[in-house]
Amino acid sequence: LKQRIGIIGGGQLGKMMILAAKYLGFYVTVLDPDAACPAHSICDEQIVAPLDDVAANIELSNKSDILTYEFEDINADILEKLESEGAVVYPTPKSLKIIQNKYLQKYTLKQNGVPVPKLKKINSYDELADFCGENNNSAILKTSFGGYDGKGNAVIKSLSDARAAYDNFAKTSGEMFAEELVDFKTEISVLTCRGTDNRVAIYPIAENRHEDNILRETRVPARISKNAIRDAMAIAGRTIEVFEGVGMFCAEMFVTNEDKILVNEVAPRPHNSGHYTIEACACSQFEQHIRAISGLPLGETSMYGCAVMRNILGSPGYSGKPLVVGAELAMALPGVHLHVYGKSSTRPKRKMGHITVVNDDMDKTINIADQAAGLVKIISE
Amino acid sequence: LKQRIGIIGGGQLGKMMILAAKYLGFYVTVLDPDAACPAHSICDEQIVAPLDDVAANIELSNKSDILTYEFEDINADILEKLESEGAVVYPTPKSLKIIQNKYLQKYTLKQNGVPVPKLKKINSYDELADFCGENNNSAILKTSFGGYDGKGNAVIKSLSDARAAYDNFAKTSGEMFAEELVDFKTEISVLTCRGTDNRVAIYPIAENRHEDNILRETRVPARISKNAIRDAMAIAGRTIEVFEGVGMFCAEMFVTNEDKILVNEVAPRPHNSGHYTIEACACSQFEQHIRAISGLPLGETSMYGCAVMRNILGSPGYSGKPLVVGAELAMALPGVHLHVYGKSSTRPKRKMGHITVVNDDMDKTINIADQAAGLVKIISE
Repeated sequence: LKQRIGIIGGGQLGKMMILAAKYLGFYVTVLDPDAACPAHSICDEQIVAPLDDVAANIELSNKSDILTYEFEDINADILEKLESEGAVVYPTPKSLKIIQNKYLQKYTLKQNGVPVPKLKKINSYDELADFCGENNNSAILKTSFGGYDGKGNAVIKSLSDARAAYDNFAKTSGEMFAEELVDFKTEISVLTCRGTDNRVAIYPIAENRHEDNILRETRVPARISKNAIRDAMAIAGRTIEVFEGVGMFCAEMFVTNEDKILVNEVAPRPHNSGHYTIEACACSQFEQHIRAISGLPLGETSMYGCAVMRNILGSPGYSGKPLVVGAELAMALPGVHLHVYGKSSTRPKRKMGHITVVNDDMDKTINIADQAAGLVKIISE
Repeated sequence: LKQRIGIIGGGQLGKMMILAAKYLGFYVTVLDPDAACPAHSICDEQIVAPLDDVAANIELSNKSDILTYEFEDINADILEKLESEGAVVYPTPKSLKIIQNKYLQKYTLKQNGVPVPKLKKINSYDELADFCGENNNSAILKTSFGGYDGKGNAVIKSLSDARAAYDNFAKTSGEMFAEELVDFKTEISVLTCRGTDNRVAIYPIAENRHEDNILRETRVPARISKNAIRDAMAIAGRTIEVFEGVGMFCAEMFVTNEDKILVNEVAPRPHNSGHYTIEACACSQFEQHIRAISGLPLGETSMYGCAVMRNILGSPGYSGKPLVVGAELAMALPGVHLHVYGKSSTRPKRKMGHITVVNDDMDKTINIADQAAGLVKIISE
């Protein structure tokens, strides 16, 4: 049993990985530039430095038997070098490099038979205009690198949108690509995990609702057709094989009006839409990730009842040291579990915590989640 | 919502309290003499000092909005003083003082109508001999203060046993009392929690097996009669009211051959026999304790399937820096959850971790627990 885990990133995902690792007795070092990051008080050691800092990555590797990360916009080159020198890094830097480049990520999936939206690399405004012309004068323009929670994406519904988006991206964003604007009926995500023994565990499919490109709600099990469930599970399994993953992967997908599945984005890590697994599944996505990267056998993904997860975002109009209000009211409702990440400051729409409701009836679960989410607010002191 | 919790004791119970508190975003300070205690790496701050150190208790109070403890052999006088000066201490120092004195604990229960074994304060050998004479020449002699895991108890089955036990205790142990030796068919424990709103939550009854006075196994639900379940739940509810508890309480009880319930011992804290609640119940005993002492509403005690908990003790013949072996084999079995406490050294029979198995069939669960417990060993490096 390898004893020391190093995590690049000490946000809420890193924190929840550590909480799982600590039950199992691992020694955990975190690399994060914020000395007061959510993970800071529960790790054994923290290296306070930028996530892409070469010396800090080397130091983390020296203090760890296994390296992993909670965030994919990191320095894959140094991880590749450390791996070549004998470090164990999961998911592998090779997978990470492909996933970091969002165009290459989707192109690789497409080449391997995984259905994705139509996409095209864009080198000029004319290429974008042509792509839009072929797709009802619409598209999403995306940057290949960086961008999350909707940043680095532009929805195009006319040629004048296309012109504005292209000019804006050309100034700031480097490589870009266009995707067809998919008219979907449901957004889902499938969490999978692959062990070092190549076994794959797949969690019940989650149904997601975004607002302003930020995940607001996850409901599990997803209310989609049996065919869509079968296809989504098969596609998720194929996806983690394409990337030769070890550890948790999340594949976000669209279910189209014709009940087709298209993969929208892959994350090589535990995912916000999998937080429900902490209370609702036998083995959470965080314990599963720790098991996988440390060479332990995978745990069970079986689920108790239904679950609804609601993100708690910083309330509009409040910035600074966070204050939780309404927790005692929300927690009085049946099946409500509150998570407060412990970020040192709040700002509007920042992910500050979440609520998971577990119950045996989906309508009841949704109803309780609505009530609870209306009660808990993050304001500032 | 009070934000800062202070815990006296940083062993495995303190550690598991912190893991629950951290999900909720609390700031936790621990008082423990061992700088490398299981809680050390996950608390926000640690005060390294003896548990009964007056200045350290005052410092802990200054750093906390709520004080609690994981162990009852602590300095109740200083807690009482801090409480009189405005500190919030749960369970209350008043309850703690009664429970610390094992004779007074049982006498108080008896006076309040809770059934306990026959007991008598012992001031001389003749009093002990008389008590044994009235009880088939048998008894258990116990010290009123201190003693755990069988230390401070002597089983008497003859007058010569009585003489030896009395002389031994008279030399070293101060106040003592005798109890009838109960011929029980099952040992059970009932975990209860009382909130600041006086509501009481009761967990499914656990069936315990001790070896050499150390808890080895807990099975839940206990296989006892419906009458015994009803009586045990009522007695547990009565017990936490007698002590005006806030927080988790554990009442260990005997079920006699005549299906009578007798309370054997009360602990004002989460308990080893309640570890199964982490994976098997909607709200664990640790989250429940944190909810109760911080004035949050209590969580649900409903259970998923059956659970068997097995303590992992330090293997005979090994002392020093612990090494876990067999984890990967045990964790490959279905429903197995491993906990490693992270103690800095092992010794024979020291509690180093535990396994909880959750499954839907008790025979299957027992069988898996047997296999898993046979596979995981704590040796030394």
